[in-house]
Amino acid sequence: MRRATIRTQAKQELIDITPQVERAVREAGVQEGICTVFVPHTTAGITINENADPSVKEDLAALLERLVPPGLHYRHAEGNSPAHIKASLVGSSVQVPVSGGRLQLGTWQGIIFCEFDGPRSREVWISVHS
Amino acid sequence: MRRATIRTQAKQELIDITPQVERAVREAGVQEGICTVFVPHTTAGITINENADPSVKEDLAALLERLVPPGLHYRHAEGNSPAHIKASLVGSSVQVPVSGGRLQLGTWQGIIFCEFDGPRSREVWISVHS
Amino acid sequence: MRRATIRTQAKQELIDITPQVERAVREAGVQEGICTVFVPHTTAGITINENADPSVKEDLAALLERLVPPGLHYRHAEGNSPAHIKASLVGSSVQVPVSGGRLQLGTWQGIIFCEFDGPRSREVWISVHS
Repeated sequence: MRRATIRTQAKQELIDITPQVERAVREAGVQEGICTVFVPHTTAGITINENADPSVKEDLAALLERLVPPGLHYRHAEGNSPAHIKASLVGSSVQVPVSGGRLQLGTWQGIIFCEFDGPRSREVWISVHS
Repeated sequence: MRRATIRTQAKQELIDITPQVERAVREAGVQEGICTVFVPHTTAGITINENADPSVKEDLAALLERLVPPGLHYRHAEGNSPAHIKASLVGSSVQVPVSGGRLQLGTWQGIIFCEFDGPRSREVWISVHS
Repeated sequence: MRRATIRTQAKQELIDITPQVERAVREAGVQEGICTVFVPHTTAGITINENADPSVKEDLAALLERLVPPGLHYRHAEGNSPAHIKASLVGSSVQVPVSGGRLQLGTWQGIIFCEFDGPRSREVWISVHS
């Protein structure tokens, strides 16, 4: 398992981390298998989506804000319940095939770390197994 | 890793692909492990749900349309932002246990490919690892 | 693959099952790998989120009820369409790294079984692979 650190800059921020994951896959040296990228936080998540046009990430962030608005009556006293809920909607891990020693994503896909309660220093844990 | 092709027929269409995945698991010859079905697209996703009554798929499609309506002000210029967002809500892969060389699903479960921006020719990538 | 049984007590109930998963990982004896927890039901799901403050689970349950309200016109005749849809929103499995023979969760993370159509006797299927 490899750890990568992500420094987020805003309350809600979607960040392409494909290069870091590709590097971890190369270092792991597994030829055929699956790469799991796991987020060990409860107010951040991870998803796969288009990275080429940054407006896709903006639309996803705006829609999540619409689905889980800040103004509702939440019980959790820390005030970050929307971040927890968004984390469960997008999920805490992604799985991507590895073939020929390389991460196999579709043409338009990128691995997107989803900060929902930043700015913070965050981690992802990357495992490659055959 | 095995590839299966899916020909979708509508803008939004939820399709049971369990038979294709079961075939790939048999061909892989792995007795005990996990099967990962990965969608290499950013406007389609994959989920597990009831397949016996097709109205479950219709209700899921209608609710996703309600959560991510077409008429909002999206920035992404291609006009298919709702499809991208729905893909992140349902997710890009599913994982299913394999035991005795066979895919292990619950009684009512099927693996459902979710087209959100069709009709198109699509792929899923199926990996079985022990 | 190990099976654990969960007895749910309410229509909608989010239950921390981390101790059961940790036990299965210890019994599996795998030192480095990935643990997959799979829900073989179509009206229940699984997610990872904060367990320390139970109000996070309550807020997540309430928000899912808001996103998928019971009063809409659903086609599925059994009356539990919202439960099916919530299952697809949170997902049917989680993946967690295993290192040093132990489940590797973040400080605040717990594995949360999501009952959406209880009370029932439910199962999770736990696989650990290296």
